[in-house]
Amino acid sequence: MTSTGQGGAMARRGRRRGAAVSRENILDAARRLFAEHGFEGTSLRQVARAAGVDPAMIHHFFKGKDELFALSVELPADPEEVLRGVADTDPGQRAELLVRTVLHLWESPAQASLVAFLRGTLGSRAKTALLREMVGRTIISRIMAGVPGQPAEVALRGDLVASQMVGLMMVRYVVRLEPLASAGQDEVVRLAAPNVQRYLTGDLFEQGRR
Amino acid sequence: MTSTGQGGAMARRGRRRGAAVSRENILDAARRLFAEHGFEGTSLRQVARAAGVDPAMIHHFFKGKDELFALSVELPADPEEVLRGVADTDPGQRAELLVRTVLHLWESPAQASLVAFLRGTLGSRAKTALLREMVGRTIISRIMAGVPGQPAEVALRGDLVASQMVGLMMVRYVVRLEPLASAGQDEVVRLAAPNVQRYLTGDLFEQGRR
Repeated sequence: MTSTGQGGAMARRGRRRGAAVSRENILDAARRLFAEHGFEGTSLRQVARAAGVDPAMIHHFFKGKDELFALSVELPADPEEVLRGVADTDPGQRAELLVRTVLHLWESPAQASLVAFLRGTLGSRAKTALLREMVGRTIISRIMAGVPGQPAEVALRGDLVASQMVGLMMVRYVVRLEPLASAGQDEVVRLAAPNVQRYLTGDLFEQGRR
Repeated sequence: MTSTGQGGAMARRGRRRGAAVSRENILDAARRLFAEHGFEGTSLRQVARAAGVDPAMIHHFFKGKDELFALSVELPADPEEVLRGVADTDPGQRAELLVRTVLHLWESPAQASLVAFLRGTLGSRAKTALLREMVGRTIISRIMAGVPGQPAEVALRGDLVASQMVGLMMVRYVVRLEPLASAGQDEVVRLAAPNVQRYLTGDLFEQGRR
């Protein structure tokens, strides 16, 4: 009896270990395929095949492709939650809240993991490809929600906003250039928000249209 | 005779190897100390001690602390040469040339090594500290040459310019967000230069002074 009981416990532990291994295999395969082919170019069926599991196994562990993608990027904060208030603000006055929200997040206890995430991501070509997918799909789409204009122009505006926000994070929190790294939040918002607002809704394309 | 000759050749090879080893030891020690204590906080005497060589050995291999620093950063382009024209331009109209110069450099054959440099640098805490020293000492000082204003304000302007330029390089060349990554040089200059010009010489501090 004792030995059977132990055997049962071992089998359960084995199953749990097996499940954990399958989940990690799926995430590894997803990271690889998303990095290589992007979100749209990767199917759950391909991920299952690459992970050596049945497609049903993916649905057992993950709600769907969106969650699998989000988890494969290992982002230290949830963009949807962080940017909710930003997306709800009038686009014509959105920059100040956007800059303030990003500074607030980076000056929270999440800072260390955000810096580590950026360092780790930018140091690797495959992870950078994942970041590109994630920034485009999740972050920029929320920041640009409701911004008027032709889709191609709004997309370019979004990338320009990203360029200023990424640069601000890099210089203030990763490279830590002084005096910007030690400037107060209010001052940074006052200095940077007008530039971000120009990218969001300023007159960028009017001359080109004439 | 023959064996003596061989012995002499071996000794010469040994000296050459020894010299190469000393030079690398000095560069390694310099990288470590510059990253930890910065350019100003590091003396050639400390580098010599950390490298286990006589201080005279440093002057044998390097023109001085500036060259030792530049070589320890392993920058793939010479900022002085690249930015010479920028520093000579009227600060009130400098942004367009600055953005164009940076895009031009990054779209030259140097792009691969610049991306590799940024990836390698940002992936490492010590290398990031070196980058901070180098950007502050060499690059921003040239970009801001002759910009009028109180020194503390000009320094902050310089960091803001850096934030936009770093972000542009990251988004266009490293992360490669579309459509910005494929936009034409002229269009990127037209879109980004006014923002950079505001940081360079725009009205940033007037309200704060009242």
